[in-house]
Amino acid sequence: MKNIIKSSFSDFFFEYETPRQVIVKNKRVAVVCRIIQLGVLAYIVGWVFMYEKGYQTVDTALGSVFTKMKGLSYTNISGVERMWDVADYVFPEQGDSSFVVMTNYISTIQTQGKCPELPDGKNKNNCDSDADCDEGKYKRHMTGKCVNSTSTCEIYSWCPVEDDRQIPESNLVESVNQSYISRCLYNPTDDPLCPIFRLGDIVERSGFNFSEIARVGGAVGILINWDCNLDLSIKYCKPNYEFYGLYGTGKDDKEEKPSLGYNFRYGKYFVENKVEKRILMKVFGIRIDIIVHGRAGKFDIIPTLTAIGSGVGIFGVATVICDLLLLYLLPKRDYYKNMKFKNTEILEEKPDLPPTQKEKDQP
Amino acid sequence: MKNIIKSSFSDFFFEYETPRQVIVKNKRVAVVCRIIQLGVLAYIVGWVFMYEKGYQTVDTALGSVFTKMKGLSYTNISGVERMWDVADYVFPEQGDSSFVVMTNYISTIQTQGKCPELPDGKNKNNCDSDADCDEGKYKRHMTGKCVNSTSTCEIYSWCPVEDDRQIPESNLVESVNQSYISRCLYNPTDDPLCPIFRLGDIVERSGFNFSEIARVGGAVGILINWDCNLDLSIKYCKPNYEFYGLYGTGKDDKEEKPSLGYNFRYGKYFVENKVEKRILMKVFGIRIDIIVHGRAGKFDIIPTLTAIGSGVGIFGVATVICDLLLLYLLPKRDYYKNMKFKNTEILEEKPDLPPTQKEKDQP
Amino acid sequence: MKNIIKSSFSDFFFEYETPRQVIVKNKRVAVVCRIIQLGVLAYIVGWVFMYEKGYQTVDTALGSVFTKMKGLSYTNISGVERMWDVADYVFPEQGDSSFVVMTNYISTIQTQGKCPELPDGKNKNNCDSDADCDEGKYKRHMTGKCVNSTSTCEIYSWCPVEDDRQIPESNLVESVNQSYISRCLYNPTDDPLCPIFRLGDIVERSGFNFSEIARVGGAVGILINWDCNLDLSIKYCKPNYEFYGLYGTGKDDKEEKPSLGYNFRYGKYFVENKVEKRILMKVFGIRIDIIVHGRAGKFDIIPTLTAIGSGVGIFGVATVICDLLLLYLLPKRDYYKNMKFKNTEILEEKPDLPPTQKEKDQP
Repeated sequence: MKNIIKSSFSDFFFEYETPRQVIVKNKRVAVVCRIIQLGVLAYIVGWVFMYEKGYQTVDTALGSVFTKMKGLSYTNISGVERMWDVADYVFPEQGDSSFVVMTNYISTIQTQGKCPELPDGKNKNNCDSDADCDEGKYKRHMTGKCVNSTSTCEIYSWCPVEDDRQIPESNLVESVNQSYISRCLYNPTDDPLCPIFRLGDIVERSGFNFSEIARVGGAVGILINWDCNLDLSIKYCKPNYEFYGLYGTGKDDKEEKPSLGYNFRYGKYFVENKVEKRILMKVFGIRIDIIVHGRAGKFDIIPTLTAIGSGVGIFGVATVICDLLLLYLLPKRDYYKNMKFKNTEILEEKPDLPPTQKEKDQP
Repeated sequence: MKNIIKSSFSDFFFEYETPRQVIVKNKRVAVVCRIIQLGVLAYIVGWVFMYEKGYQTVDTALGSVFTKMKGLSYTNISGVERMWDVADYVFPEQGDSSFVVMTNYISTIQTQGKCPELPDGKNKNNCDSDADCDEGKYKRHMTGKCVNSTSTCEIYSWCPVEDDRQIPESNLVESVNQSYISRCLYNPTDDPLCPIFRLGDIVERSGFNFSEIARVGGAVGILINWDCNLDLSIKYCKPNYEFYGLYGTGKDDKEEKPSLGYNFRYGKYFVENKVEKRILMKVFGIRIDIIVHGRAGKFDIIPTLTAIGSGVGIFGVATVICDLLLLYLLPKRDYYKNMKFKNTEILEEKPDLPPTQKEKDQP
Repeated sequence: MKNIIKSSFSDFFFEYETPRQVIVKNKRVAVVCRIIQLGVLAYIVGWVFMYEKGYQTVDTALGSVFTKMKGLSYTNISGVERMWDVADYVFPEQGDSSFVVMTNYISTIQTQGKCPELPDGKNKNNCDSDADCDEGKYKRHMTGKCVNSTSTCEIYSWCPVEDDRQIPESNLVESVNQSYISRCLYNPTDDPLCPIFRLGDIVERSGFNFSEIARVGGAVGILINWDCNLDLSIKYCKPNYEFYGLYGTGKDDKEEKPSLGYNFRYGKYFVENKVEKRILMKVFGIRIDIIVHGRAGKFDIIPTLTAIGSGVGIFGVATVICDLLLLYLLPKRDYYKNMKFKNTEILEEKPDLPPTQKEKDQP
């Protein structure tokens, strides 16, 4: 028993099997076969390994973005001068990856109270008498009184009601002075790595019209794209900035299409003489969403060997295709079949064969 | 030399090798082998290619979300009427992908000063005399005085101290009027693509009880799931909305479990008569987190050929399994071994063989 | 015809092909071959399957984070006592995954008006006469007047101008009392799963110096890393917390390097006696970005069979290498070539062969 194991073991280690092969000396089939094999080789070496870097394992990036707006704006509306700084026009203030730059606004100082609804200009919410203003009938909480001066119902609300029927011309105009930019300014050709951007450039590169967007608002995506090959020096691993207009084309800003443009309402609350008040701001702005997307590849043994292993499999496909040509399409297919295949006899139903039976090479 | 290269080259191009094979005419083994091969074929074609779309390369989506709440709320607390609009009850205001809808609140107008601590109702922070109120002993900055009226220590703080021992019944109740929804309303069966949702529907679909969640707060995740096949027309690439209750089941809202429910404190700061004051809001609300998840597949040659290549490899496994059957389990295994294998002689220790030595097919 | 199909079909099902092989009894080559094969086997079983879990399909996690700061801070600046609570020092207030803890501030109560610019201390913005203060010449909107007392130009602005030339010593010092932490406190060795962290621990583990960071601000990333094997019980699927210092090393906080440190300006707006005012806060703080990264693996048939299939392919490579040894390097290579290969005759240009032609094993 020990001997059998020993002999099996030495057989296993001192022998190996290699397939017997026919060398087919047929130019047409051989050329086809070699071309397929060279194609497979070129695909694996050139495409999978060199172009697609199939020897690399790929991971995506985790990123954190910190933003800071700079710049002052000056407005002179009906003689009222006002300076706007970052604390006034950026929401939220803390430098998130998604923030809004206010470019236009409607401001209303309000208290809780009773005041007439705003006429919608189409006489849809007109009233002629108190009977038209049933309490609780509409979405707004009504007092049941029709106000003569405006011909609209009186409501409980933050009063006076904000008048946003007309979007004013852009109140705030970007005027960042060049002296602010101490080091560099992003430019896709001259300075593609500078992380300092002019707001006007961002909007323009996203495909929007700045003055329209400034009036009704819009959203711009900045994609910071890292595509790194960590087999090279880390110094070649640099981001690429791309700008996308997300929504708010500004081309169709009728009030019936609330999804175009970008705006939100915002209250600054305070108490004056025991009365709670708020400054309601309807903010039109440019919302900037910064998205970090990164993928980095690095040599790894597993994708390398998987690519080689499946490449070997595809090599086998070349032989299979040529064999089909050889064995089924060529006029001399019977000769080649004879060379390639050896048939066993059908032994199924017969008794056990004597061990002396010899292999017969020809059928 | 040139001739040798030329001849090697023409040999390489005008010959090709194909393995010699034995055709085993044994029904049992052949049937097993064919079934395994058909299984492998069905797996590769049916599962890998058709079901799992193994011929596609997959990429994930980058998304940006913009949200807008609409709706008014009316409260009448002890006769004080108040209207709430979006600027009052949504945090943050600018339409982020993660926002909170206030559904309940405790409001306290405070100034910096000295006031007694709130009795906790369990006599844990009671004091009998000033000796119990050592300055600096506790987490709050104490003045060292015991206040008789409340039997608690006096502290430096925003005063008066907020009383949040009892969460009031939900102060704000959603009352979005149908007329607001101009176009469509999300419904999983009738209108699965409408991006307009009722808050009550969102909460209900996430598995929460609206009135409980409105009282103590909670968090709901909305997953916008894109699963696209870019080999088809882009018009079939549509999102799917899923709703998840994240935390705050509302079923167990004892104050000992601060992780259930969702609330945060928020100050509205102002100066009145040179004194800085704030309205401290303890906000209970429904936090909505919108997560975009997308994957898109598109035909690509590399996964296709990798799948084919490794499929060819698995085909080889079928032959290996059948060979094991044939060569180790069948009674006539010696006959088949003879047919399949040819042994070389052991030439290792012998001198160089004369080139006339012939192959012997049988051992 | 029917018979031919039937016979092809039965041939297909009752026969199978298996390659004929030579058993090479050559110790040196066989040992090399077996070692390569065992290496491939060890690589596939040990590395691909056991270590890298190549039988699993991997997906990434979608996460939602909710944060809550706790703690009070007491300041006594020039005799003015003040308590700070969470509503005062956390931005934004609603528990986002990215938030800022204010650790230092410069506070200025301002109204819109005219006031002199702040001298920069380097006489760069000095003026001697009104002629130096051309209206509109500089980034700030100037009135054209030179103010004698400061020797700087008068500007339209929020007045008085904030004086941030000197960052004060850290105004707010963390003093979270132990009693606040009711259940556990994160500790990488003793309590690695507790989701309650001390701010000082977070900063320290990220590699920053707390007192420097508290003064000039900085950003810390907390990576919540889930690496789960869903083939095991879900109870082994636990997060791992990692802390990274993102920017603001605090070691080089000269004003010429605005990217070091972290600060933002923030206004609290109110109206007093019909005049709009704001409390401008320059907030220095520790920004905490929480990033959830998760990957979960689960057994899947496709990566398993792809790994096996390409492994079989690599097995084939072992045979190819040994064949190269055998057929090109060994002294007895001609003998082995003879055993492995059978040459067909060159039949290309000859007429069709009679079917009786027999295979010749030797060339």
